[in-house]
Amino acid sequence: MKTIAVIHGPNLNLLGSREPDTYGSQTLAQINAGIEKAAQSRGAACTFFQSNVEGELVNALQGAANTDGIILNAAAYTHTSVALRDAIAAIAAPVVEVHLSNVYAREDFRHTSLIAPVCHGSICGFGAQSYMLALEALL
Amino acid sequence: MKTIAVIHGPNLNLLGSREPDTYGSQTLAQINAGIEKAAQSRGAACTFFQSNVEGELVNALQGAANTDGIILNAAAYTHTSVALRDAIAAIAAPVVEVHLSNVYAREDFRHTSLIAPVCHGSICGFGAQSYMLALEALL
Amino acid sequence: MKTIAVIHGPNLNLLGSREPDTYGSQTLAQINAGIEKAAQSRGAACTFFQSNVEGELVNALQGAANTDGIILNAAAYTHTSVALRDAIAAIAAPVVEVHLSNVYAREDFRHTSLIAPVCHGSICGFGAQSYMLALEALL
Amino acid sequence: MKTIAVIHGPNLNLLGSREPDTYGSQTLAQINAGIEKAAQSRGAACTFFQSNVEGELVNALQGAANTDGIILNAAAYTHTSVALRDAIAAIAAPVVEVHLSNVYAREDFRHTSLIAPVCHGSICGFGAQSYMLALEALL
Amino acid sequence: MKTIAVIHGPNLNLLGSREPDTYGSQTLAQINAGIEKAAQSRGAACTFFQSNVEGELVNALQGAANTDGIILNAAAYTHTSVALRDAIAAIAAPVVEVHLSNVYAREDFRHTSLIAPVCHGSICGFGAQSYMLALEALL
Amino acid sequence: MKTIAVIHGPNLNLLGSREPDTYGSQTLAQINAGIEKAAQSRGAACTFFQSNVEGELVNALQGAANTDGIILNAAAYTHTSVALRDAIAAIAAPVVEVHLSNVYAREDFRHTSLIAPVCHGSICGFGAQSYMLALEALL
Amino acid sequence: MKTIAVIHGPNLNLLGSREPDTYGSQTLAQINAGIEKAAQSRGAACTFFQSNVEGELVNALQGAANTDGIILNAAAYTHTSVALRDAIAAIAAPVVEVHLSNVYAREDFRHTSLIAPVCHGSICGFGAQSYMLALEALL
Amino acid sequence: MKTIAVIHGPNLNLLGSREPDTYGSQTLAQINAGIEKAAQSRGAACTFFQSNVEGELVNALQGAANTDGIILNAAAYTHTSVALRDAIAAIAAPVVEVHLSNVYAREDFRHTSLIAPVCHGSICGFGAQSYMLALEALL
Amino acid sequence: MKTIAVIHGPNLNLLGSREPDTYGSQTLAQINAGIEKAAQSRGAACTFFQSNVEGELVNALQGAANTDGIILNAAAYTHTSVALRDAIAAIAAPVVEVHLSNVYAREDFRHTSLIAPVCHGSICGFGAQSYMLALEALL
Amino acid sequence: MKTIAVIHGPNLNLLGSREPDTYGSQTLAQINAGIEKAAQSRGAACTFFQSNVEGELVNALQGAANTDGIILNAAAYTHTSVALRDAIAAIAAPVVEVHLSNVYAREDFRHTSLIAPVCHGSICGFGAQSYMLALEALL
Amino acid sequence: MKTIAVIHGPNLNLLGSREPDTYGSQTLAQINAGIEKAAQSRGAACTFFQSNVEGELVNALQGAANTDGIILNAAAYTHTSVALRDAIAAIAAPVVEVHLSNVYAREDFRHTSLIAPVCHGSICGFGAQSYMLALEALL
Amino acid sequence: MKTIAVIHGPNLNLLGSREPDTYGSQTLAQINAGIEKAAQSRGAACTFFQSNVEGELVNALQGAANTDGIILNAAAYTHTSVALRDAIAAIAAPVVEVHLSNVYAREDFRHTSLIAPVCHGSICGFGAQSYMLALEALL
Repeated sequence: MKTIAVIHGPNLNLLGSREPDTYGSQTLAQINAGIEKAAQSRGAACTFFQSNVEGELVNALQGAANTDGIILNAAAYTHTSVALRDAIAAIAAPVVEVHLSNVYAREDFRHTSLIAPVCHGSICGFGAQSYMLALEALL
Repeated sequence: MKTIAVIHGPNLNLLGSREPDTYGSQTLAQINAGIEKAAQSRGAACTFFQSNVEGELVNALQGAANTDGIILNAAAYTHTSVALRDAIAAIAAPVVEVHLSNVYAREDFRHTSLIAPVCHGSICGFGAQSYMLALEALL
Repeated sequence: MKTIAVIHGPNLNLLGSREPDTYGSQTLAQINAGIEKAAQSRGAACTFFQSNVEGELVNALQGAANTDGIILNAAAYTHTSVALRDAIAAIAAPVVEVHLSNVYAREDFRHTSLIAPVCHGSICGFGAQSYMLALEALL
Repeated sequence: MKTIAVIHGPNLNLLGSREPDTYGSQTLAQINAGIEKAAQSRGAACTFFQSNVEGELVNALQGAANTDGIILNAAAYTHTSVALRDAIAAIAAPVVEVHLSNVYAREDFRHTSLIAPVCHGSICGFGAQSYMLALEALL
Repeated sequence: MKTIAVIHGPNLNLLGSREPDTYGSQTLAQINAGIEKAAQSRGAACTFFQSNVEGELVNALQGAANTDGIILNAAAYTHTSVALRDAIAAIAAPVVEVHLSNVYAREDFRHTSLIAPVCHGSICGFGAQSYMLALEALL
Repeated sequence: MKTIAVIHGPNLNLLGSREPDTYGSQTLAQINAGIEKAAQSRGAACTFFQSNVEGELVNALQGAANTDGIILNAAAYTHTSVALRDAIAAIAAPVVEVHLSNVYAREDFRHTSLIAPVCHGSICGFGAQSYMLALEALL
Repeated sequence: MKTIAVIHGPNLNLLGSREPDTYGSQTLAQINAGIEKAAQSRGAACTFFQSNVEGELVNALQGAANTDGIILNAAAYTHTSVALRDAIAAIAAPVVEVHLSNVYAREDFRHTSLIAPVCHGSICGFGAQSYMLALEALL
Repeated sequence: MKTIAVIHGPNLNLLGSREPDTYGSQTLAQINAGIEKAAQSRGAACTFFQSNVEGELVNALQGAANTDGIILNAAAYTHTSVALRDAIAAIAAPVVEVHLSNVYAREDFRHTSLIAPVCHGSICGFGAQSYMLALEALL
Repeated sequence: MKTIAVIHGPNLNLLGSREPDTYGSQTLAQINAGIEKAAQSRGAACTFFQSNVEGELVNALQGAANTDGIILNAAAYTHTSVALRDAIAAIAAPVVEVHLSNVYAREDFRHTSLIAPVCHGSICGFGAQSYMLALEALL
Repeated sequence: MKTIAVIHGPNLNLLGSREPDTYGSQTLAQINAGIEKAAQSRGAACTFFQSNVEGELVNALQGAANTDGIILNAAAYTHTSVALRDAIAAIAAPVVEVHLSNVYAREDFRHTSLIAPVCHGSICGFGAQSYMLALEALL
Repeated sequence: MKTIAVIHGPNLNLLGSREPDTYGSQTLAQINAGIEKAAQSRGAACTFFQSNVEGELVNALQGAANTDGIILNAAAYTHTSVALRDAIAAIAAPVVEVHLSNVYAREDFRHTSLIAPVCHGSICGFGAQSYMLALEALL
Repeated sequence: MKTIAVIHGPNLNLLGSREPDTYGSQTLAQINAGIEKAAQSRGAACTFFQSNVEGELVNALQGAANTDGIILNAAAYTHTSVALRDAIAAIAAPVVEVHLSNVYAREDFRHTSLIAPVCHGSICGFGAQSYMLALEALL
């Protein structure tokens, strides 16, 4: 059975209440439940992690080094974290970068991803469906 | 029945022979056949178009204005075409940007997409599967 | 009798339906009719051309090299086309650059015109009236 | 009867003697007379003001806030004055930016207009006729 | 008794009517009255000056060189005036920079203050209260 | 009774011993005591938090989402943290940015604040008094 | 017998009449005749193609993929076309970049070549002789 | 008898008291007296003008258009004034740019002179002697 | 007896398995053992700390403020952390920056060190020996 | 009989042993011999000079001012030497810039040539043949 | 008796024949003779040195460390030489930077002087008289 | 017996008298003596070379191509010399870059090293000890 680690970055624990026009009205728990259901239907298992601390996300990536794939929504750290980039490059598991919103339609500083060059691929703009597409890409 | 327009940009007619390390060994015809099959299995129809001429791609986008969705791999024009951007903004159909390769792992000039801000979402780095994920996102 | 060539760039064939808040509700045919009427009342003749293909606009400029003046709305190609710039510099007829919208009140990439330095003059922001003012400037 | 305010910026009082290759041989008085005549023929009245002092131009714009339109050749202050920009944004009357020369064919620092984004439209490169076209645009 | 000079820059004479969403609905006279009352209650006297002319603001700063403090809202000149910066650096009185709006939430060119490095401190975003806080900081 | 959360960023726990020429000789405990006293005299209550960890500051902002206001000295993270910016934008409580020193008189990288655009207002350069002014602004 | 494809970009069809100070007085037909004669004297055959349309030049490059070498004067597209670059990288035939004028002695935007990095070599500044040198380099 | 106009820009009226480490301890009156004496000894006459208002300096330059030479210390406006540049270019009299301090050893924004390209020559760093050398250069 | 604190930044806990071509095959424990042995042979004691969390590294620097020296490999945070810079500037102990790889031979974003300006010195490119050289420099 | 001066810049004396993948396996003596032979066959004479010292290359250019042409491979100084540029502009003989490698396919700093704008033409990427083509261009 | 060292940089040995429109028609020997005569009349002695080699100019500056002043026309090295800058900063004698032409009216790369910040003062644009003014400034 | 070449760049011959606050009070001879002694104690031999001429430093690097290692303090040429970079890349001996001062704590232009990417490693900020550490790294 394949295992997929789903890692959520800063402020994603606020989903549902945080700027719903941009991020949608689903809570993170609801999104995770949806991902888990989809994974189970394809015979895969998921783990979930969220943190607002950059270094704990680095820890989580290292801890998921031997899974079959990682779905990472690094949120704000996407644009500023060399540490996450180095962690992704250091581990064997393929990482798929996801974003709920279309980051290219927002502020300039959100157009640069420090992690994209070392990820397997990138998916953004489809709301919670972004995670589902990433799951499908990895399985 | 939903209709999806698949539009391929410059040099994608060379797929299969063109830098296979970067772009894979499938021909464009094979990729199109795979997309068509996937669409049919979900009860949708696809049209396919490829051109090396920027303006013909603008024409194709305009012509697909009333479809249920457009999958656009603008290739080289992704990084230089305001005309494609204006066309996407001018039509009602949602457009999903796709790329075969992870453009963020390549030359700097490929890191900027003029069309991403007006697309519905963006998917890159999964080879031919990028198109499949886009199809799923639209259906 | 003086002859004036009116050349429209990409996506202007969509006028009327395309983002009416920015571009107004007149169709291109209606705008052309208005220009023609104004020209006739001053004893001049107009030709009209629209294309989404950059190179065809180059062809059109070359073809109008011996007219008494050219009114050019290069639209998206304004900001990216060295080819149009070279064509304008290569021909004898004076070219007036026009834009329907105030391009300086829009995205940053619309603030740079590659063709303005080789045009006779520039008019923007007056909607369809921009063409009329250009006609008056040339006659 | 409509009233139009014509406001001229720094060094335009030297017109006629100042770099005639760039700015033409008409004096400012002659240009004003031409504008006034054109306005009268269309049943409108004009006021004229010239100053080399940025703040006095701000005063003049504020003083013309309730006219039917303002024709502003901000000259050198076009490229450096946030104060003029703020004045234009603060008043109700539509402002048309004009320039005698084609500023885009000159030094780089003349390619940026701080006031263009808040003006109604922009006309440049037609010599004294630039003012006439602006008058027509406003009436 | 301490004396505080309050100096207002360009277009602030329009307060109340100018873009009330950004600048509030109080007139400059009302704001000045509020500052004066607050100063008096703390046993201090205020002088008030407003000008749209950069150099007159330089004059005013020089004239207030021996007050106990200066509250300066340089408005548009904040972003462009080396002359104001030099005046502030040349005089002994401490200068507090204030802005009604949060300039960092507006256009890019408003994010740079040429005068901030030579001021005692900076306060922005609190509407007319910004002046009150500056008064408190100086007393 | 109103509640105000005071959140201090990295290295502010060293106040008193850290570069006293720049940051003053008061300890953080002394500053907090002063703020508390001022708040109490106005019938408000304060909570205090300091951390060197970016993510814990994000947590603290989220935890203070329902207070009547937040005083945030993000210190070094002011210039690098998109995560703090997103947290501020995600919560309802108004946030006032404060700095002890005049950051504009220091190194270039301290002139850019990623959080200022989403704060209610900004106060810098008044030493410990910066916090007092922020308190006053919020009450 | 070796075959060489000679591909001319936009506005080169105007040679002879177009800015003769910069581009010389020979027509394109005369230049082609000269190249053909030189090729024949060395036992090689040439094909010639000119277009103002970027995508047709892409087509021409693809069509010449199996020749013994390509001489490409991409003219204006040299500085803006990622599509040409990708086409050159995608085909096996070596491509030599030529320019009639010394592009480095002209406007800044002509100093950047998007295609040079994927060409075999570059020759500029020798007028029509640039083509002859490229021919010699390829044979 | 030759006439030389000496024009001083903003804040130079404070010389003597203003940052004496940078600008010296002589007052402007003393400097002017020194220049006058030197001019008289060489049979030339001087006029003197100082203003903090950019536009009045433009006026002064225009008023000195027919002198035998102008010595201009534009001070802060050196770095920001296109209006002064245009005035210098518009008049016949040769203008020599002077600065008391070595502007290149100070802040970055003082390293750029908008007026230098249209002046006859530039002298900086010699304190009040800078004016004397300029006088000598003009006579 | 002198005490030296050795502080390792993010992802260095993976040494040995992480990109061995770049970082070598020694584990962090092995490197620490080597440093300890070298320190003991010179009569000094070492403490060791590693964290992936930026703020914990700040804590560690503060905690080592009174040692005789700190060897800091900030890894990814070298290029992004103002917080580490401020911590180094705030403490008395001299800090030596070390890197295993030659960061100047890698990606552009690794060429900038925010901490180097406040460190005592910098050593990079010698693998694990970089730490040994730093130890020697401090003793 | 025509005379051509061939001038080689820094590190070209190492040809043959220096990075043969980039620069080929011929020694400089062998390349010079080849050039000489080709020149003789066309009735021209060559002189040869190599130096690692920028100023000696300036001397050599000055010394060759009256030859019929100069072939200059300025190597590393291509990208940094204003002195060579000034020397080329100061002499009458036409100078052709050559490079062995395709400098545009290498590091960014090799894409800028300070000397190209004042050379007659430029040839790069053909290995030792680059010199031969330059010789042909000059004869 | 005071001694002044006059040091001329690259290509100044060509004066008289080199671009006389820019640099005048006097030879370097004539200029030196003029300087010597002026120095003698004021009881000072001069030494003269010219070289095209950057390092020899460094040597010359070091050799003149104990003169009463140095007049340096670093020519092309003005814009590129940190070595000259360091030499000037390392010696006690005051250095005056001179240029024959107005470097600010020429190419952009001539607008930056690496040596100006460490010189005593700067004089440019007066032809050979620039040296005379520098001599006067030093004596 | 191993041989190490020590190469010193421009102005290092002035050590001892040159800005002792930055560079220390040891002369170059004293530093060389210290290095030699340290080398001898480890059974290695050193050669020493200093020059102010960039090209002679290139010569020295080429001459040391077969030593067991090179210690290079390129001083000012560190920041400007592509020629030194190319020489280092062209030779087999490992090169260690050293600097006496912490270049990152000084002017911006000293933060960029053109040679670092091709050196084996880099050591800066430890005064004369920087050379000793480099020696240890090479042996």
